[in-house]
Amino acid sequence: MVVGFEKAVSATKSVVTSAKKAPTTLSSDRVINFARGDPTMYESYWRQMGEKCTVVISGHNLMSYFSNAGHFCWFLMPELDRAIRRLHCVVGNAVVDDDRYIVVGNGSTQLFQAVLYALSSSYDPDTEPLSVVAAAPFYSSYPEETEFLRSGLYKWAGDAYSFDKDGAYIEVVTSPNNPDGAIREAVVNRDGGKLIHDLAYYWPQYTPITGKADNDIMLFTFSKATGHAGSRIGWAIVKDIEVATKMVKFMELSSIGVSKESQLRAAKILEMISDDCQNSAPDKEENFFEYGLRLMSDRWEKLREVVKRNGVFSLPKYPQDYCNFIGKYTDPSPAFAWLKSKDGLNCDNLLRELKIVTRGGTNFGVDSNYTRISMLSPDEEFNLLLERLSAIQVTIINGNN
Amino acid sequence: MVVGFEKAVSATKSVVTSAKKAPTTLSSDRVINFARGDPTMYESYWRQMGEKCTVVISGHNLMSYFSNAGHFCWFLMPELDRAIRRLHCVVGNAVVDDDRYIVVGNGSTQLFQAVLYALSSSYDPDTEPLSVVAAAPFYSSYPEETEFLRSGLYKWAGDAYSFDKDGAYIEVVTSPNNPDGAIREAVVNRDGGKLIHDLAYYWPQYTPITGKADNDIMLFTFSKATGHAGSRIGWAIVKDIEVATKMVKFMELSSIGVSKESQLRAAKILEMISDDCQNSAPDKEENFFEYGLRLMSDRWEKLREVVKRNGVFSLPKYPQDYCNFIGKYTDPSPAFAWLKSKDGLNCDNLLRELKIVTRGGTNFGVDSNYTRISMLSPDEEFNLLLERLSAIQVTIINGNN
Repeated sequence: MVVGFEKAVSATKSVVTSAKKAPTTLSSDRVINFARGDPTMYESYWRQMGEKCTVVISGHNLMSYFSNAGHFCWFLMPELDRAIRRLHCVVGNAVVDDDRYIVVGNGSTQLFQAVLYALSSSYDPDTEPLSVVAAAPFYSSYPEETEFLRSGLYKWAGDAYSFDKDGAYIEVVTSPNNPDGAIREAVVNRDGGKLIHDLAYYWPQYTPITGKADNDIMLFTFSKATGHAGSRIGWAIVKDIEVATKMVKFMELSSIGVSKESQLRAAKILEMISDDCQNSAPDKEENFFEYGLRLMSDRWEKLREVVKRNGVFSLPKYPQDYCNFIGKYTDPSPAFAWLKSKDGLNCDNLLRELKIVTRGGTNFGVDSNYTRISMLSPDEEFNLLLERLSAIQVTIINGNN
Repeated sequence: MVVGFEKAVSATKSVVTSAKKAPTTLSSDRVINFARGDPTMYESYWRQMGEKCTVVISGHNLMSYFSNAGHFCWFLMPELDRAIRRLHCVVGNAVVDDDRYIVVGNGSTQLFQAVLYALSSSYDPDTEPLSVVAAAPFYSSYPEETEFLRSGLYKWAGDAYSFDKDGAYIEVVTSPNNPDGAIREAVVNRDGGKLIHDLAYYWPQYTPITGKADNDIMLFTFSKATGHAGSRIGWAIVKDIEVATKMVKFMELSSIGVSKESQLRAAKILEMISDDCQNSAPDKEENFFEYGLRLMSDRWEKLREVVKRNGVFSLPKYPQDYCNFIGKYTDPSPAFAWLKSKDGLNCDNLLRELKIVTRGGTNFGVDSNYTRISMLSPDEEFNLLLERLSAIQVTIINGNN
C-alpha cells in the first residue's frame, strides 16, 4: 500500500487525467479552496431562521462615534455587551461576571494586536521588544500579525516549546487549537509570562464545553461562533481594567472603534441564539449549537471514513468528553482537519494535484507532511472534497496500472 | 479692551458664578464638548429622509469573509466601489477613472496606517524608519497613529516646514486642513517624497469644489462626507496598484477586511445622495450637500458675529471661490473653527472656564493660544457654545466691576 501511494504521488498528474475520464467519480474539475476558514457552512441555518434576526437600520441611526460615552469602552454598544455576556452564561464556556471587562474589536484579529499593545506598551522603551510565542502547530497568522509593522514593543519568537529566554514574554494559548483542534494549556509557565487565550473555537459545535474558561485575557469571534465572518466582530473578556483600557486605546488609534451596524446585528443574532437555547418548549427545534454539532459530527464521520479507507493520510484522535451545554458526552469536531500524510510527503502539494487548496504545515510552524483543511465550507464543496480524497485510492490503482 | 480681557481672564472664575446668577444668559451649566468632530449635526437631515436609505439585513446575509474573491481588494463590496466612484463623479471632487484603485477601510484612520505600511514596507529593514511629516498645524492624531506601535518601518518626524532630512519621506497633505480649514499643497517638495492626501473635508458643505483632485493617494471618509461616523467606513483612491495591493495586505493583517453591514449601508446612502444630486425635477428639495452648506454657512456666520462682538478671539479668513458643484461662488465653512486668542493666552483653558471643552493648539503642533472647536455638533450644543462665547464680554464687564 505504501509503495502504491508513493507511486500514486509520482503519478499524481494522472489523477486529474483519470478524473476527466471518469466524471462520475470527480464531478467537477474546478479548484476547491479549503485554505481559509470561511464559515459559509452555517448560511443554510440562518436562512432557515427567516426574519427572526433581521435588522432594519434607517439613514439617521447609529451616526455618532460614541456608543456609550461614559464607559471605558466608549464604542461598545451596551446591547452587544449584554448579548455577549448572556450567551456565555447560557453556553457556560466563559466567566463573564461583572468584574470582567468586554472590549469589542474588528474581529479577534484586531483584538489580538490590541492585546500585544496593551501588554507591551508600558515596558521601558530601551528594553528589547517583548517576545510573543505559541506552541507549534500555531495559527498561521500570529507570526505575521506580530511582525508586519516591525514593532519595537513586541516581536514574534516562534514555538513556545523551544522558547528559553529569561524575562517577560507573551504566550498565546489557542484552545481548541487552530490548526489541530487540541485542547491546550500554557507550555512555557515561567515568571514574567502573560497569557492570551484565543478561544475562538470554544463553542459546543466544535468541542465539549467542560467548564467556564476563566483566563486573564480571552478572545472570541463572531465569525467562528455563529459563522458571521463578514461582520468583523470579535470580543475580548479581560480581568484587568488597565489591560482593557489600553486595548481600547489601541482600538481608538487603529480604527476609532468598531462598526455599529455590525455590533447591532451581532447583538440581535447572539440574543436570538440565547433565546433559542433557553427555550424549554417540548416541541422546540434544535438550537444553533445543536445544529452546528450535528453538521460537524456528520462531516467528521464522513471525513474519517474516507481517510481511513484510502489509507494515505491520518487525522488526530480526540477524546470524548462530557459537554455541559449539550448535556451528554460528545466527540470534538474541530473547525479544521489537521491532515498528516503517512509517508512524510508534502501534503499540500499532493492535494493541489487533486485541485484541493489547503494550508500546509510550514505555515503553522511544523513540517510540510501536515496540512490544514477547513471543515466549514458549503455542503457542495465539502462533498467534492470527500469525493476527491476518495479518488486518491482510485489513483493509486491507476498509478500502478 | 485688551486690558479688560486680561482682567476677565484673571477673573474667569466669576464667569461661571455670574452664569449661575443669570440663567437667561447661560441656559445650562453643563460641560459641552467640542473637542471631537462627532458629526451628529447631520442626524436631522437623515431623519427627514425617512426610509429612503433604510437597509434590511437578514440573518443569513453577508456571512462570508469575501466580497469579491477575484478582485485585488477582495473585501470591498462591488456596490460600495460603484457608489463611491459615482458620488465622486457627481460631486466632481476627485478623479475616479477606471485605472484608479479603491481600497475600503475601517475609517480613514486605518487607511492612513495602511498607506504608511504600503509606502514603507519595501524599504531595506536595515535602514532607518521612513520619516512621516505634515505641516503644522496638523491633525492631532497623525503623530500618535504613526508612533504608538514604535514601528521600525516609519516614524513621526513632526512639522513639514522644519523637516530638513535627506532621503525618502512621507508628507501628509490635509486639504481642507484639520484643524484650520486651509487649502493646502505639499511643502517639502524634495526627491524621495511620497504624498498622502487626506481629503476628508473636500466636500461642498465645507469648501468650494474647484476641481477634481488627482493625487497619487487620496483618503476620504464616510464620517465627514455624510456624518455616518459610527459606520467606520473610509476609502482610499490610489493610482499605483502595488501601493493599493500592499494596503489590502495591511487590511488583511490588521482586521481581515471591513464590516459588510457598514459597506452595504454606506453604498445605499452614497447612492441616495447621488440620485438626489442628479435629480433635475423643478420642485426637487435641496440635496445633502446643499443642506450641509446652508447649515454650515449659517453656523459660521453666527460664530463670526459672536467672535467679532466679544473681540477676545480671532478666526481665520478664507477666500470665496467658485464651487463647480454648487454652481456659484461660496464661502468655505470648515468642519472646525480654529480659534486664536488675541492676547496669546491659553485658549483651551480659557474656554474650559466657560465649561467648553476644545482641543488646544499644542495637540496640533502649534501654540496654546490656538484651539479647535468642532462645528458639527447638534444645534442645541452649538447654540450653547454661541451663548457662552457671547457671555465672555459680559464677564469682562463683570470682571471689571
